[in-house]
Amino acid sequence: MMMAEQKATNIHWHEGEVSRDERFKSLSQKGCVLWFTGLSGSGKSTIACALESALVNMGKHCYRLDGDNIRMGLNKNLGFSAEDRTENIRRIGEVAKLFADAGIVTLSSFISPYIEDRDAARKLCDAEGLKFVEVYVKVPLDVAEERDPKGLYKKARAGEIKGFTGIDDPYEEPLTPEMVLDTSELSLDDEVKACVEYLQANGLLAM
Amino acid sequence: MMMAEQKATNIHWHEGEVSRDERFKSLSQKGCVLWFTGLSGSGKSTIACALESALVNMGKHCYRLDGDNIRMGLNKNLGFSAEDRTENIRRIGEVAKLFADAGIVTLSSFISPYIEDRDAARKLCDAEGLKFVEVYVKVPLDVAEERDPKGLYKKARAGEIKGFTGIDDPYEEPLTPEMVLDTSELSLDDEVKACVEYLQANGLLAM
Repeated sequence: MMMAEQKATNIHWHEGEVSRDERFKSLSQKGCVLWFTGLSGSGKSTIACALESALVNMGKHCYRLDGDNIRMGLNKNLGFSAEDRTENIRRIGEVAKLFADAGIVTLSSFISPYIEDRDAARKLCDAEGLKFVEVYVKVPLDVAEERDPKGLYKKARAGEIKGFTGIDDPYEEPLTPEMVLDTSELSLDDEVKACVEYLQANGLLAM
Repeated sequence: MMMAEQKATNIHWHEGEVSRDERFKSLSQKGCVLWFTGLSGSGKSTIACALESALVNMGKHCYRLDGDNIRMGLNKNLGFSAEDRTENIRRIGEVAKLFADAGIVTLSSFISPYIEDRDAARKLCDAEGLKFVEVYVKVPLDVAEERDPKGLYKKARAGEIKGFTGIDDPYEEPLTPEMVLDTSELSLDDEVKACVEYLQANGLLAM
């Protein structure tokens, strides 16, 4: 009965590809990438999570890319050599671009310590006419190390982790990020508001 | 003025991650993967394009993964060795899984000639509780070769392309696909309807 009732008797389609604009219109928003970068413990994922919740409450559609769904999946065949780190960020940039093209407000949350790698991700979006918003989640190293939510700084200081960003590998600060959020000074509420306001001011939450 | 008017004064968010169910509800559909597989010239992309149009007309949200947006982007550092072909399909499977998790009806359109590779993509979705629909776009080789929309069969017969599926590399037919569409017998309209009806009958276009 269910199947009979649901039978698709009135289906319309046009030839040729659905355009990006059609996708954006059907979602009432513009796909884009918010690229959160900063030290381990800076608060990138905390902001991305809260922002996702705020956007969903506003009826907007977003998706987070982070270590949890990338490192064990798409990038599980990558290690931590310089080459693999670059390839890690390259793939994330490519996937973020696809999500933005699909119309999704895409929240990418990775340390991504090198300017060159972040700029490469930006260029992928630029080349496709998609908005890329670099959000520098700034925090003094000693504050991040004090937080140490995963105990990684402790291990890095003890020499148990090599090449740890901020300890024995550099974090290259963004030179001209679209946003800077200092999580040692702002409340999470203010950080989320700043992101939503940026998206609204740039017309990304409407179409 | 614009910015002042648009100021985000009423933002609500909850702690913790937005669940997949929340994403699905906000899109009024369930994310899933339709994996179109078949010979070059079988009609995979034609069906995927028309289905995308039909779904957008129904107010549904989908995205196509195909050679155009994958081979020159995420997978541009892969060639056509056996190892690279497997990695090509592995990455596509991982990305399709992410799109499905985001709530998107994901239309993947690649020859994907090997059972093992397709099954690996299926397992990624199965492991995450996401629906994977293998759609075998079936056509006799001589019909595909007669169509030869990109002139690739001609080149393969002339020996200008090596390892071409159906000519000097095997196409392994799906053993238990969810759908079989014989494009030498069905009209495009019927193929699109069959896909929409499958999605509806399996409750994927509602939440």
